[in-house]
Amino acid sequence: MNGAETLVETMLASGVDVCFANPGTSEMHFVAALDTHPDMRCILCLFEGGVSGAADGYARMTGNFAGTLLHLGPGFGNAWSNMHNARKGRAGMVNVVGDHAGYHLKYDAPLQADLAGVAGSVSHWVGRAEEADQVVSLGQEAIRRARDGQIATLILPADSAWSESASTPGAAAAPIKKHLPEAAHIAAAAEALAQPDTALLVGGWALYGDGAELAGQIAARSGARLLAPFFAPRIEMGEGAVAFDQMFYPADLNAEFLSGLKRIICVGENPPVNFFAYPGKPSTPTPPGCALDVVCHPDWDVQGTLQALAEALGVDGTEAIPRIALAETQIQDGTLTAEGIGRALAAATPEGAIMVNEAVTAGAGIWPPVNTAARHDRLGNTGGSIGQCLPAALGAAVACPDRPVFAVSGDGSAMYQVQCLWTAARERLDITTIIIANRGYQILHLELAAQGAPAPGRNARAMFDIEDPLLDWVALAKGHGVPARRVETEADMADALAEAARTEGPFLIEAVI
Amino acid sequence: MNGAETLVETMLASGVDVCFANPGTSEMHFVAALDTHPDMRCILCLFEGGVSGAADGYARMTGNFAGTLLHLGPGFGNAWSNMHNARKGRAGMVNVVGDHAGYHLKYDAPLQADLAGVAGSVSHWVGRAEEADQVVSLGQEAIRRARDGQIATLILPADSAWSESASTPGAAAAPIKKHLPEAAHIAAAAEALAQPDTALLVGGWALYGDGAELAGQIAARSGARLLAPFFAPRIEMGEGAVAFDQMFYPADLNAEFLSGLKRIICVGENPPVNFFAYPGKPSTPTPPGCALDVVCHPDWDVQGTLQALAEALGVDGTEAIPRIALAETQIQDGTLTAEGIGRALAAATPEGAIMVNEAVTAGAGIWPPVNTAARHDRLGNTGGSIGQCLPAALGAAVACPDRPVFAVSGDGSAMYQVQCLWTAARERLDITTIIIANRGYQILHLELAAQGAPAPGRNARAMFDIEDPLLDWVALAKGHGVPARRVETEADMADALAEAARTEGPFLIEAVI
Repeated sequence: MNGAETLVETMLASGVDVCFANPGTSEMHFVAALDTHPDMRCILCLFEGGVSGAADGYARMTGNFAGTLLHLGPGFGNAWSNMHNARKGRAGMVNVVGDHAGYHLKYDAPLQADLAGVAGSVSHWVGRAEEADQVVSLGQEAIRRARDGQIATLILPADSAWSESASTPGAAAAPIKKHLPEAAHIAAAAEALAQPDTALLVGGWALYGDGAELAGQIAARSGARLLAPFFAPRIEMGEGAVAFDQMFYPADLNAEFLSGLKRIICVGENPPVNFFAYPGKPSTPTPPGCALDVVCHPDWDVQGTLQALAEALGVDGTEAIPRIALAETQIQDGTLTAEGIGRALAAATPEGAIMVNEAVTAGAGIWPPVNTAARHDRLGNTGGSIGQCLPAALGAAVACPDRPVFAVSGDGSAMYQVQCLWTAARERLDITTIIIANRGYQILHLELAAQGAPAPGRNARAMFDIEDPLLDWVALAKGHGVPARRVETEADMADALAEAARTEGPFLIEAVI
Repeated sequence: MNGAETLVETMLASGVDVCFANPGTSEMHFVAALDTHPDMRCILCLFEGGVSGAADGYARMTGNFAGTLLHLGPGFGNAWSNMHNARKGRAGMVNVVGDHAGYHLKYDAPLQADLAGVAGSVSHWVGRAEEADQVVSLGQEAIRRARDGQIATLILPADSAWSESASTPGAAAAPIKKHLPEAAHIAAAAEALAQPDTALLVGGWALYGDGAELAGQIAARSGARLLAPFFAPRIEMGEGAVAFDQMFYPADLNAEFLSGLKRIICVGENPPVNFFAYPGKPSTPTPPGCALDVVCHPDWDVQGTLQALAEALGVDGTEAIPRIALAETQIQDGTLTAEGIGRALAAATPEGAIMVNEAVTAGAGIWPPVNTAARHDRLGNTGGSIGQCLPAALGAAVACPDRPVFAVSGDGSAMYQVQCLWTAARERLDITTIIIANRGYQILHLELAAQGAPAPGRNARAMFDIEDPLLDWVALAKGHGVPARRVETEADMADALAEAARTEGPFLIEAVI
């Protein structure tokens, strides 16, 4: 068995059976090994940003993780920005990156680059299998780390892939044991939560399912405000979901939202920070003098911490957790607006939907009605790198084939990884992509003003506006093999969503606002 | 004047007046500074791979260089692979990358990443302006390095951009003095060139214009074979161009091509190396025992070295340089083939055209007829990272508005930076994009076989073929605002090229083979 085959078998033995991929020549023996192991589902993306973003979405929806297959330094570079988003949301992945055979490196062939450098700049862990015999043990270590929510990159030189290995493939060892805060810290936090003007800010596992229930019980029992971050990796929304106080994007809104708080206790989430710095404004929205207590860092044991906090507070299941109530929405006449997209989407949201959010500026209008629609999961852009929505939707749809996925993206953002439309068509994924066609990076107009800069002139408009020429999203979708429709009224938006629901596989709606 | 303004003025004072860009919030003050300096031409690309690839193409065709404007770590990551291609071809650029304000870094905001790490993994030089006062001197250093063919990255934290600067903007100092080989080495090389079975392998400046003439004179005077690399950054082809013996991509063909050589003298080019390693095959195509003598590394003084060699050999301008002769091509009946694309393109090549080559497997059929067409420049993929063609064509067209540009790309490659079509439409660039629609990464089929792996199975085909669904390039082009046409016969290909020539601005031909 060669090194490549030992890696495929190690991945399969460890429950890793999905691989988002865009291979090249240096990965040919790994490809050959995948060929003899049809249990591994290989999904091609036409650009590597789709590969890493899909792995991110897959991890968020499974709690497990996927493999990626990338081609040397440039393939890794192309995947970098969506690895950054995954890293910020603690979605693990195992990147298998081919490299030249070790003995070939000295010749500085065209594709040779500082692969370890680019990989190390975004991965939690990088291993390089210098020999075929190392592939199993390094692969197992990568898998352990990915299970821990880490970006784990295994560099697989071509000769380590093609050479015979003396190692026996096998499942990776148990996950890395996560750190639990000291008991005294838990006790102090439990006591503090019951004080006035205190908030509990949670992240990760605590934003959906059992985790959200537990967080809700703790908040209800202690009386603390229950905060969720704006850029939540995955948060449950809609009817019956725990009603978090979710933060905002704009620094000023957040400052107002948090005003009056004396203490914020963080479990599984970093303290609030403004997305950017602005001249003369503080870096965080936390009120002056508000104490910050990070009881459990995002990479620590969030589940164990919440259970300990619940125990310390005497949570017994009788707590009245505030929950989101369903609100009916009414489609209105007239031309489409962000709010109208939200109303139509809310009315069309099936229970169990997955919404991937990169609506950017239009989100403030779209999401309020959807928040009170049927129960669903919402995936946010955790690292701020645009182009995360379409790839994450791919991964979510692969992870949850029975759940309809909605990718809600600004047009500027969607162009970043537009090639993902093709993979959705190829894999017949149930993804409705809603492109908010406001014909520009509208956020930059807001941010230019927020930075105190003057009104945009010719050069600024040349870099903010994408209306000359107009992107034709119906044509772009068709080009990728995805049926599509352009809508300009709210009634048409509702009708298009109904058409999307009737359509097998992906559908795209260009929502002009 | 704030730091951002000092940088824009320093760039303009140094002759840098084109900036390919995709900015974000952290670059807003730089954008505002660009707004008050309309002499700087800002060109938006809808993905950063287009930004860096366009800067590469611009540098190749001007001998000068462009600026890029990128948004933090993720923006840089997206630009990485085409920076790699530029680096391998020694096309300089100054990357201006925004970052969070220095005091904001400690908060680990969503977009914070290891920017210095990712930048350092592909840049020759990285500087970070911790204070506004440093921006001018670091900007000047970046410009000097870019003039030297380096990837120079200036990290501009937001507060260094918006704070007042005490520094006076001004032109960068004279270029870095390039190293010239020792006189004894030149003399030895001149003597060796006159020996039998010797080749002169040149690169960079020596592949076009005065440089190619000089290389041709040296070869003619000495009797040495005159070799050019397969992946030349820029090489002159067509009627009257110096007739280089250009190397091949496949390792076996190259080995045959170089067989019999006793010595290869390299000027401005690294010794030949196979693109990849293959089991049981050598890493280089050089015949066993063939001596390699790198007289002048690519980053040394190529021009000075060739002039010294010419002088040592007594070059006097009377040398009979072998030149490419024009060969008429005849359009043939029948369905389109790679050879047919080549014939039609050869017939349609205007003198002074710029051809950007990422034809990959189809190139072996396409280029032979074009090589003997009208005189033109050919730009190759220097780093092997696909997705270089469409961006480089943008940059070449901006650099040379009076010269028609042809971007000849495989479909898999073109999808990598497909968003560049939009920029071509926006800037009304005279680019004819020829998509060779063979519906897959055909090279991977060849490479799988070359690696000795068995015939492709289900998983391999899932990663090599892009025929389900078919990409509709006419629709993709329309979506980006570019008129387009699909052709399936050679006559139609010729007709489409005529239509492209009549059409103002960009045009796309989907050439199905």
